Amino acid sequence: MSKVYSTAIDAIHDVRDGSTIMLGGFGLCGIPENSINALVKKGIRNLTCISNNAGVDDFGLGLLLKTRQIKKMISSYVGENQEFERQLLSGELEVDLIPQGTLATAIQMAAMGIPAFYTAAGYGTEVAEGKEVREFNGKKYLMEHALYADFAIIKAWKGDRYGNLIFKKTTKNFSTSMAKAGRVTIAEVEELVEPGELDADQIHVASIYVHRIFQGIDYEKRIAQELKDGMYVNLGIGIPTLVSNYIPPDVFIMLQSENGMLGMGPYPLQEELDADLINAGKETVTILPGGAFFDSAESFGMIRAGKIDLTVLGAMEVSERGDIANWKIPGKMVKGMGGAMDLVAAARNIIVAMMHTNPKGESKLLPQCTLPLTGVGCVKKIVTDLAVLDVTNEGFKLLVRAPGVSVEEIKDKTLGKLIVQGEVREMEI
Amino acid sequence: MSKVYSTAIDAIHDVRDGSTIMLGGFGLCGIPENSINALVKKGIRNLTCISNNAGVDDFGLGLLLKTRQIKKMISSYVGENQEFERQLLSGELEVDLIPQGTLATAIQMAAMGIPAFYTAAGYGTEVAEGKEVREFNGKKYLMEHALYADFAIIKAWKGDRYGNLIFKKTTKNFSTSMAKAGRVTIAEVEELVEPGELDADQIHVASIYVHRIFQGIDYEKRIAQELKDGMYVNLGIGIPTLVSNYIPPDVFIMLQSENGMLGMGPYPLQEELDADLINAGKETVTILPGGAFFDSAESFGMIRAGKIDLTVLGAMEVSERGDIANWKIPGKMVKGMGGAMDLVAAARNIIVAMMHTNPKGESKLLPQCTLPLTGVGCVKKIVTDLAVLDVTNEGFKLLVRAPGVSVEEIKDKTLGKLIVQGEVREMEI
Repeated sequence: MSKVYSTAIDAIHDVRDGSTIMLGGFGLCGIPENSINALVKKGIRNLTCISNNAGVDDFGLGLLLKTRQIKKMISSYVGENQEFERQLLSGELEVDLIPQGTLATAIQMAAMGIPAFYTAAGYGTEVAEGKEVREFNGKKYLMEHALYADFAIIKAWKGDRYGNLIFKKTTKNFSTSMAKAGRVTIAEVEELVEPGELDADQIHVASIYVHRIFQGIDYEKRIAQELKDGMYVNLGIGIPTLVSNYIPPDVFIMLQSENGMLGMGPYPLQEELDADLINAGKETVTILPGGAFFDSAESFGMIRAGKIDLTVLGAMEVSERGDIANWKIPGKMVKGMGGAMDLVAAARNIIVAMMHTNPKGESKLLPQCTLPLTGVGCVKKIVTDLAVLDVTNEGFKLLVRAPGVSVEEIKDKTLGKLIVQGEVREMEI
Repeated sequence: MSKVYSTAIDAIHDVRDGSTIMLGGFGLCGIPENSINALVKKGIRNLTCISNNAGVDDFGLGLLLKTRQIKKMISSYVGENQEFERQLLSGELEVDLIPQGTLATAIQMAAMGIPAFYTAAGYGTEVAEGKEVREFNGKKYLMEHALYADFAIIKAWKGDRYGNLIFKKTTKNFSTSMAKAGRVTIAEVEELVEPGELDADQIHVASIYVHRIFQGIDYEKRIAQELKDGMYVNLGIGIPTLVSNYIPPDVFIMLQSENGMLGMGPYPLQEELDADLINAGKETVTILPGGAFFDSAESFGMIRAGKIDLTVLGAMEVSERGDIANWKIPGKMVKGMGGAMDLVAAARNIIVAMMHTNPKGESKLLPQCTLPLTGVGCVKKIVTDLAVLDVTNEGFKLLVRAPGVSVEEIKDKTLGKLIVQGEVREMEI
């Protein structure tokens, strides 16, 4: 059984014009950089690439975009790459944007021989167009299909000659599922060892899935009051991350980061920086004692199964009935929905943390959302710079106002129906 | 965050009459024995138990069967327990038998918030009755639903106070998926450690899934020519296991055991015996260098996704068109289908290894199967004590006869249509 290749160019020898390729990694964490460089060098074109992100302009998949070798991208979030955004807006590039959890799980299903499955992510949004809707236990789900590819190209930490793989920290992300789903799977590893050197209990991808393996070179490393003790909390990117600064010292919260971690700790000191350990915002972070790493399919599994006690998200608009829009401004901003649709479709308890108005001073609390929806009727509470409001069947119910902010000001800046009952107290700080 | 309980009785305090419970383990490997003993002691009744097996008469779930505390079992294989078989045949016990892969994955889907999925296992058999059949890419699949439970009770090797778990060898089996699927998950561990003592890269079940944990006590440990180099092969129980004795020394085969192992080695020497390392036949085995352990959901994922190059199964009957029956004799034998339906529904290359006739001397190669089917039109080749035959559109095609066996004898003992073309050579040994 010989699966070992000596170089990236040899390992990708039969990737052809028009091939469909899955590429592992989240942001720049755990990307198969040697293989991508080989694809650039080989100059094959019209590729369909399945990858959560598209790298940045001068690294990762960005390199293949620059050389126009990619015909179509299937991704969840492409916000970090200007050339990508340009090609998409100009129509030079076909793009399928898929909710991050659906993307991870559709790949995992291909790996498991399951042709189709049901998820609530994207129900009621443009993602649902043309898809079968079905009700289970009173909730609406979309039928999604498994996602297949001619090649899966991924990077692991260690591998043996048979193809067994072990990953480090948050580098599992999409790579473990892709490695299991590819018709032909090519793995580049930092360290290639002999069979038996890896502990069989700790293997993340078993040899049966991996067809070719090589040792890569030159790895470039890049670098509240609602919270109750024992809660598992997912904090969105942006304003929500600030919430963690206000956790009382006697409350223990386990933060989940949807790229594959529980127990997210503070930003690292200079000497702790580790490119293999990032959060969903692609910032390097640390892990606290008792934390755990896992892959994206599992991460969205725990989100979808309702294990997260509280989700705090940013938003561009929230409607009276709890609809949320936070992923797209048509014709202007096309970063992708990332994991937001999966989160809002699944979470039992969603708080939106946002400014009360947009930069133009217009209300973000509306009778109906004007932007494409991320989810329907899912927001339970809104915390803004001006107030805290519950989303009720009758409209936005004002609970507390920020210090020095009058009820009148909140009324003025709330376009959706506002319910004010009795005296509204000032927020305590 | 306190999840630690001091005893099994405390940890199961709110399991009530009529509760639905998932119990981890495969055979007697990795079963939550302390918790089962506590359930027996507590005397609660009318339980619905989801467990691949039902223990043996005096250990594991067999104890709860003996005391008649179980109203219903949801299992794939119950062959080791005579009291179970008696209660089933007498109608005292309700039993749902589910293909092993469907069982594992239905639990995994509950853990992932996916209400329904499609699998080919059981299509065309009695398992398909009343289920939606749907075609994807020209193949027929059954819609199966996620399987939920009030409690998941499992055993792990090590756990920390937050509930992070690590498993040993083939003890992952159903336990990792169940741990993630339970509405309330109770874990008993051999060793309870402090958060941070487990390596976050090696955690098999993250803390978010586990609600209660306690350290258990008194753990009782129980103890070819078709094969080409580099093949991944699943060998069924019985005659097929003998195949491994005939692998030529220059051919490297990786044996898969569907309870969660690649790289299965020979039976252990006395001093190598390890109750945590068993094969699908519940025999203790060894692992070869380069092997890997994983859970049942993953094991059947790789089977279903067609990663296995060759599957060798025993059979009670095979029909001309390749139907196979090997799991049930109505009213007489109700061991369950185990993983057989999943294997035959998925494998690209299935060889049946069996005696040509049954103990009564009747042909097992028939125009049509008379016993309940395991799978439809899936067998490609049959190796018996008398001959090797291909299954073709026209019938059984005789390829080779065993030494000293005449074509006439094979004709006499083959009830289905037999095709004999030209001289039929004798098998070389």
